[in-house]
Amino acid sequence: MIFRTEKDTLGMVKVPMDKYWGAQTERSRNNFRIGIEGSMPIEIIHSFALLKKAAAYANFEFGILSKKKRDLITLVCEEIIEGKLDDQFPLVIWQTGSGTHTNMNINEVISNRSHVLMGGKLGKSKSFIHPNDDVNMSQSSNDTYSTAMNIASYKKLIEKTIPSIEILRNTLEKKTKLFKNVIKIGRTHLMDAVPITLGQEFSGYVSQIDHGLNSIKKTLDHLSELAIGGTAVGTGLNSPKGYDIKVTDYICKYTGLPFKVANNKFEAIASHDAIVESHASLKQISVSLIKIANDIRFLSSGPRSGIGEIYLPENEPGSSIMPGKINPTQCESLIMVCTQVIGNDLSISIAGASGNYELNVSKPLMAYNFLQSSQLISDACSSFSNLCVKGIIPNYTKIKELLNRSLMLITILNNYIGYEKAAKISKKAYENNSTLKEEAVRLGYLTIDEFDKLVRPDKMI
Amino acid sequence: MIFRTEKDTLGMVKVPMDKYWGAQTERSRNNFRIGIEGSMPIEIIHSFALLKKAAAYANFEFGILSKKKRDLITLVCEEIIEGKLDDQFPLVIWQTGSGTHTNMNINEVISNRSHVLMGGKLGKSKSFIHPNDDVNMSQSSNDTYSTAMNIASYKKLIEKTIPSIEILRNTLEKKTKLFKNVIKIGRTHLMDAVPITLGQEFSGYVSQIDHGLNSIKKTLDHLSELAIGGTAVGTGLNSPKGYDIKVTDYICKYTGLPFKVANNKFEAIASHDAIVESHASLKQISVSLIKIANDIRFLSSGPRSGIGEIYLPENEPGSSIMPGKINPTQCESLIMVCTQVIGNDLSISIAGASGNYELNVSKPLMAYNFLQSSQLISDACSSFSNLCVKGIIPNYTKIKELLNRSLMLITILNNYIGYEKAAKISKKAYENNSTLKEEAVRLGYLTIDEFDKLVRPDKMI
Amino acid sequence: MIFRTEKDTLGMVKVPMDKYWGAQTERSRNNFRIGIEGSMPIEIIHSFALLKKAAAYANFEFGILSKKKRDLITLVCEEIIEGKLDDQFPLVIWQTGSGTHTNMNINEVISNRSHVLMGGKLGKSKSFIHPNDDVNMSQSSNDTYSTAMNIASYKKLIEKTIPSIEILRNTLEKKTKLFKNVIKIGRTHLMDAVPITLGQEFSGYVSQIDHGLNSIKKTLDHLSELAIGGTAVGTGLNSPKGYDIKVTDYICKYTGLPFKVANNKFEAIASHDAIVESHASLKQISVSLIKIANDIRFLSSGPRSGIGEIYLPENEPGSSIMPGKINPTQCESLIMVCTQVIGNDLSISIAGASGNYELNVSKPLMAYNFLQSSQLISDACSSFSNLCVKGIIPNYTKIKELLNRSLMLITILNNYIGYEKAAKISKKAYENNSTLKEEAVRLGYLTIDEFDKLVRPDKMI
Amino acid sequence: MIFRTEKDTLGMVKVPMDKYWGAQTERSRNNFRIGIEGSMPIEIIHSFALLKKAAAYANFEFGILSKKKRDLITLVCEEIIEGKLDDQFPLVIWQTGSGTHTNMNINEVISNRSHVLMGGKLGKSKSFIHPNDDVNMSQSSNDTYSTAMNIASYKKLIEKTIPSIEILRNTLEKKTKLFKNVIKIGRTHLMDAVPITLGQEFSGYVSQIDHGLNSIKKTLDHLSELAIGGTAVGTGLNSPKGYDIKVTDYICKYTGLPFKVANNKFEAIASHDAIVESHASLKQISVSLIKIANDIRFLSSGPRSGIGEIYLPENEPGSSIMPGKINPTQCESLIMVCTQVIGNDLSISIAGASGNYELNVSKPLMAYNFLQSSQLISDACSSFSNLCVKGIIPNYTKIKELLNRSLMLITILNNYIGYEKAAKISKKAYENNSTLKEEAVRLGYLTIDEFDKLVRPDKMI
Repeated sequence: MIFRTEKDTLGMVKVPMDKYWGAQTERSRNNFRIGIEGSMPIEIIHSFALLKKAAAYANFEFGILSKKKRDLITLVCEEIIEGKLDDQFPLVIWQTGSGTHTNMNINEVISNRSHVLMGGKLGKSKSFIHPNDDVNMSQSSNDTYSTAMNIASYKKLIEKTIPSIEILRNTLEKKTKLFKNVIKIGRTHLMDAVPITLGQEFSGYVSQIDHGLNSIKKTLDHLSELAIGGTAVGTGLNSPKGYDIKVTDYICKYTGLPFKVANNKFEAIASHDAIVESHASLKQISVSLIKIANDIRFLSSGPRSGIGEIYLPENEPGSSIMPGKINPTQCESLIMVCTQVIGNDLSISIAGASGNYELNVSKPLMAYNFLQSSQLISDACSSFSNLCVKGIIPNYTKIKELLNRSLMLITILNNYIGYEKAAKISKKAYENNSTLKEEAVRLGYLTIDEFDKLVRPDKMI
Repeated sequence: MIFRTEKDTLGMVKVPMDKYWGAQTERSRNNFRIGIEGSMPIEIIHSFALLKKAAAYANFEFGILSKKKRDLITLVCEEIIEGKLDDQFPLVIWQTGSGTHTNMNINEVISNRSHVLMGGKLGKSKSFIHPNDDVNMSQSSNDTYSTAMNIASYKKLIEKTIPSIEILRNTLEKKTKLFKNVIKIGRTHLMDAVPITLGQEFSGYVSQIDHGLNSIKKTLDHLSELAIGGTAVGTGLNSPKGYDIKVTDYICKYTGLPFKVANNKFEAIASHDAIVESHASLKQISVSLIKIANDIRFLSSGPRSGIGEIYLPENEPGSSIMPGKINPTQCESLIMVCTQVIGNDLSISIAGASGNYELNVSKPLMAYNFLQSSQLISDACSSFSNLCVKGIIPNYTKIKELLNRSLMLITILNNYIGYEKAAKISKKAYENNSTLKEEAVRLGYLTIDEFDKLVRPDKMI
Repeated sequence: MIFRTEKDTLGMVKVPMDKYWGAQTERSRNNFRIGIEGSMPIEIIHSFALLKKAAAYANFEFGILSKKKRDLITLVCEEIIEGKLDDQFPLVIWQTGSGTHTNMNINEVISNRSHVLMGGKLGKSKSFIHPNDDVNMSQSSNDTYSTAMNIASYKKLIEKTIPSIEILRNTLEKKTKLFKNVIKIGRTHLMDAVPITLGQEFSGYVSQIDHGLNSIKKTLDHLSELAIGGTAVGTGLNSPKGYDIKVTDYICKYTGLPFKVANNKFEAIASHDAIVESHASLKQISVSLIKIANDIRFLSSGPRSGIGEIYLPENEPGSSIMPGKINPTQCESLIMVCTQVIGNDLSISIAGASGNYELNVSKPLMAYNFLQSSQLISDACSSFSNLCVKGIIPNYTKIKELLNRSLMLITILNNYIGYEKAAKISKKAYENNSTLKEEAVRLGYLTIDEFDKLVRPDKMI
Repeated sequence: MIFRTEKDTLGMVKVPMDKYWGAQTERSRNNFRIGIEGSMPIEIIHSFALLKKAAAYANFEFGILSKKKRDLITLVCEEIIEGKLDDQFPLVIWQTGSGTHTNMNINEVISNRSHVLMGGKLGKSKSFIHPNDDVNMSQSSNDTYSTAMNIASYKKLIEKTIPSIEILRNTLEKKTKLFKNVIKIGRTHLMDAVPITLGQEFSGYVSQIDHGLNSIKKTLDHLSELAIGGTAVGTGLNSPKGYDIKVTDYICKYTGLPFKVANNKFEAIASHDAIVESHASLKQISVSLIKIANDIRFLSSGPRSGIGEIYLPENEPGSSIMPGKINPTQCESLIMVCTQVIGNDLSISIAGASGNYELNVSKPLMAYNFLQSSQLISDACSSFSNLCVKGIIPNYTKIKELLNRSLMLITILNNYIGYEKAAKISKKAYENNSTLKEEAVRLGYLTIDEFDKLVRPDKMI
């Protein structure tokens, strides 16, 4: 590989000739060979570009950055946002806990790319745009990385996670209506219980998801708070008064989203409770989804020796050894995703608790886990909705068969003959492998007619 | 011990002569000798009593329970609420996952106690009040335990947790104002950074707690949803139409709290996402409190070889071997509490995800952990506020000394001489163990006067 | 309440007249009103007493404690070990993170109780035994609390947890043998799969538990390392050379357990990786037990609309509303216990990671969670073994019925007609709700005789 | 893109023309568009190839696979192991929970690639090697994926994780020796305590890591158990007797590692407690490393306003805004890695607990998290060792200064004047900001000479 030499305040560094990044990026690349290269989420890079552009515009308005510099910075930022420079961001999340290296990666790429755009050659002569003095003007890594985290996270929830969950919710709701009259046995403690409709079961899933969506949305306000303008420790040293509002306004304009200046910038740099809070709502929806996916796979279990009350779509052959096997793979995939999210929630919580003084130094970890969770939930909900829930069909025969032989239909008689006599009927029917009706009559508690009039599953739901 | 014989649908059981509980409670007591006896939280028992009273009133209104029965049930419920029968609830949380045994414990105690109140003798003749047919009328364990969980949890948050957190918040806010002019060194990555005031640091804590309180409060609406009226599986079988609203109205009246009928009773019995959601906010505030408590103990560390910027109150001798030692014990205690809450959050999340079909069967576990967390946070916040934060005093001498020798005051010069020259000054001062001013002048970047005019900590906050 | 006045290095404190504890205990009691009083596990107190006795003997041997003092200290320690003074230890775990207050509680109780034993009156005249200079001689809280943690934890594992798990293991193994010839359908992805015996299924559980037991036992060596002799920071300041070995020898003698001097006392005070390690094995067995308990309750689900391949004992009526219902409550209880242990493991891990410099200050939290987990697993395993597993009986009729109609018996034909043709048979039988044999013959792949000879469940296990 | 048509038992599928994978892989690719493409760890693919080769050799030995087929399969397996076909494995971990799709991906690639190697054209005419009947002969996904997981995990621990941790351990041990005479102040509760040497502190770290390494190694035996030969449910249906031993022997031969046939194959497919167990030891070492990394960054904090007892190497400029700032970034990176591992441990534990009946269906999730953790710990330990620990240098001036002014040197006097008098000296010195000696003499407890003879830090360690 061919290298050029770049310089920072610690000295000279060899950088691959054809890359726009500079000395500090290269140092980080060499000092943190941990895990897969380039693990810093691209959404963070793109959000950073958006922020750098907003910052340049604000700096220009405050008269501290020239129009020419503003426009050059903007030009490169737009290339980054469009994904044209994605291969210029090789750093990992396992770097400095403030994300400074990634901020410098952006600053250096903007500086060097603009140098080339102006006709310069990488490594030859100084760039017109200085990575610190110009691109990073009025900013610190501490406030910019924190800001990029929230922008990326908020966008992901709005653009991906919430819409996909809503798709799943709506598919489930359609089933609720379709299955409204499908009376089936209920199960508590996994054991036969009183009747319920399949639609009622699905309505519970819809309600869980509605609560989950609500919970996610209620966290957005906190997540919309941006640290920008706080610079190094929250005081805003080296940034003009009003800078926070200006930059935030631009970010709102670029994204169409209601970001706002953080309530307290000391908090916004030293802690990331907004990430903790929003991710807890992702954990909550994961808890709900595990319950739902489990129900669906258990209800569809069989085909002949399980519960078998519903059919799932046959998407793939299920086994390399057992011919003809079909498995509830979308449920399994979703459950794995949700299990991952619960683990991620823990990493985020521990990271959130581990800030000290003016800075939380687990920022990249928190960003990584948040973006992974929100993306996975989005993808898995779409997949589960389209390739599983949408195609669910009741097995009417099986449902009817199981319902009719249930001993728990007896419950309706509590109000007529009392709990104890009802229990006696049920116990006898179980022991004798007979029907409730037979035993009720044999015990002399009811006539056949009375029984038939009272014990009607369709009146029990 | 002397026993009497009681009967349930499975047969005869010996019960301690002097106890009000009956056969099913005794079975549970014998079948679940797990952990400490009586671990079912007393708050659950008291909430149950409140609910049973409301249920009796509603049943009376629907004309299915006599006035005499209603009033007898009420009489015992009030004894339970007043704590007079606390020793009649010996069951553990490690019982059936629906909490049925505790529901039956209540039902049996009400039945037998009313028998005695009416002049009957325990074990002699049938009670006028039947545990299932009367006390449990129109109810199931599944909807009542779920309801009791939410009543107890909601009340605890409103009456204990939130007020104590607010006390701590207000104490911190007072300090914010008191410390508003105490300029000190900021620290990022634990390393010396640009100045900040002690008040600004504390304002960050206040803001974290404000966000945390907000987060808790936003979950209350979900938590206020009661499953009552759903009976066994959510359909409300064996309960009169409108029963849910009536009972809920009584509960609101008795508690003065805005409970409401669950949005979806299938969900409310099969899942406890409201508990998951509210507890996640307790986890969030725990994450915040760990950060805060850590800061305070690190800032007070010393007395001579630590940071030592603040003094904590001297509450107890700190060491059995080192004479004169004083330790930040309130911080440590709070951190342990918060660590416990994070663990509890996990247990609650797993439990929340593990429901099947029409019932979640980790109800007692969820109740136990929720009530432990909410009580511990309450107690620890009061304690931390009164015995630690309230008494914090700045060590002005130390603060000033550390501020003035900081090399990061150099940051202000970025805007005047650029990042690179500023870095050179700072590096030299560090290497030569000299002051920034000496090096700035020596390097010829600024005159003494210029330096003094620009580098002023009081202008940097 | 009547009080007497006690003194420590911070001044005067009012102490309840009739209690043996002194000033420092009372301070802690007042300063840490957090959660339930007396939450410090009694096992810690008893282990402390054992240690204090050993320490007194060692001190005497080194000629620094008189025989009279040794014997007096021993006398009180024995009272404590016998449980006679359990009500003298009112402190909570949410105290100083070193457990110093509990060490002082012991020291003070020994001092004051010995004063009374010598005919003194509480609060009148100085005790012959000084809590710090005598009882705590050659010790610090830091090494003694760490030592007491390990003694209590080790003892609990040996005396309670391991034996109970072994009981469960043996009960499961008996079933393995009993069920060895019960051929049933296997299930993968919850879906019908190739045959297996019920005994084979149970042999898997036994193997899981064997691995779990092994895993617990492998951690004992680390857990047997005692910090005693390290005093405040691990250097052993103020303790005689060889003290560590002497005290440890006595502890071994008193307990009959192979404790040893910690490999590195700096570690043993600053970290509790042994607790983290041993508890991780408790988490592992919990993971196994959840799998096992889930299998058992799903296999027993029904009685008519579930899997129903096994019967569980009928221990209690299952429902307050559904007469005759029986539920897998032992499974549910065990699962809740295991869920709690997984949460506890997290609290312990976070606590373990949060030590600083020479001391971990989450000791009481770690002790509390460890002892809770190990006790709960012990109790729950005994209960599950005796009240559930022991009584499991196969439902031969149901097992046979489900086995014979399985489509996955087709798998055996892979080796004869290939995967693709086999799949065709299975698909057809599924679509036509027919048998494999019918379709195999119809498709002309095999004759009836061939089919009958090849497709034999009893040859597939 | 150009496609060819491939067929499986569910019908026709379009597959990219130039890819070796077939119908089932393509179905999975389309049905599971979740997260980043190709997230199934490449280590799993390579382990699978190794296993398929071993399986082919065993099948040949049992006379059920021709030599020609064996050699063709082997040829492709070797290409896979060498990484030549890495782009042929596009599947994600969020697929079927058994990993069947990945097994089929391997089977299909081997089949099609061998077809091409024999001169065939993709999509034209049948391959000589059938994916199910030949490559998968005597195997199921259930036993092969489980086997590949353990091979990959074991290899990673042996080849990466353990060696890197040992590097770190040895670097720390070198420091232990180098720092053996550097007497410094100890700190408990973050507060000044009695003296210790820097070497002693580091010896504690070494001991933690030794225990952690031990803990990892003790889990290897369990992890070495391979499920191979169990086929679908553990019974070994469709595999020849003795097949398990043969295949395992080949795997041992290929890897040079001591794998063995699983103790119980029902367990080995239905549960992955070995993964849970080994990962718990990774969590344990993470807990240790967080403690160590925190100590090192706190000890190095400053340069002027922190503890500052040690210097860390200056690896990169630390701030985009604060010139000259150097941060403990290797510590931060390591802490983030360890925080991730703790989260991964949770995901693995939940996944481990969630198996049902004959199969655990979170296999890919468990593999992914295990391999991520073991790789990250390996990389981070190397990095931390080389770029941080290796370069640590004591700040002798600061260490001496802090030691000498410590009030806790008083502890040595307990044995001479008792705890209470010692406390009085210490309190006075603290209040008067004086020295212990001054106060000891002023209070008349010791002469200057006595004090100087007794209070010697170098005698306290």
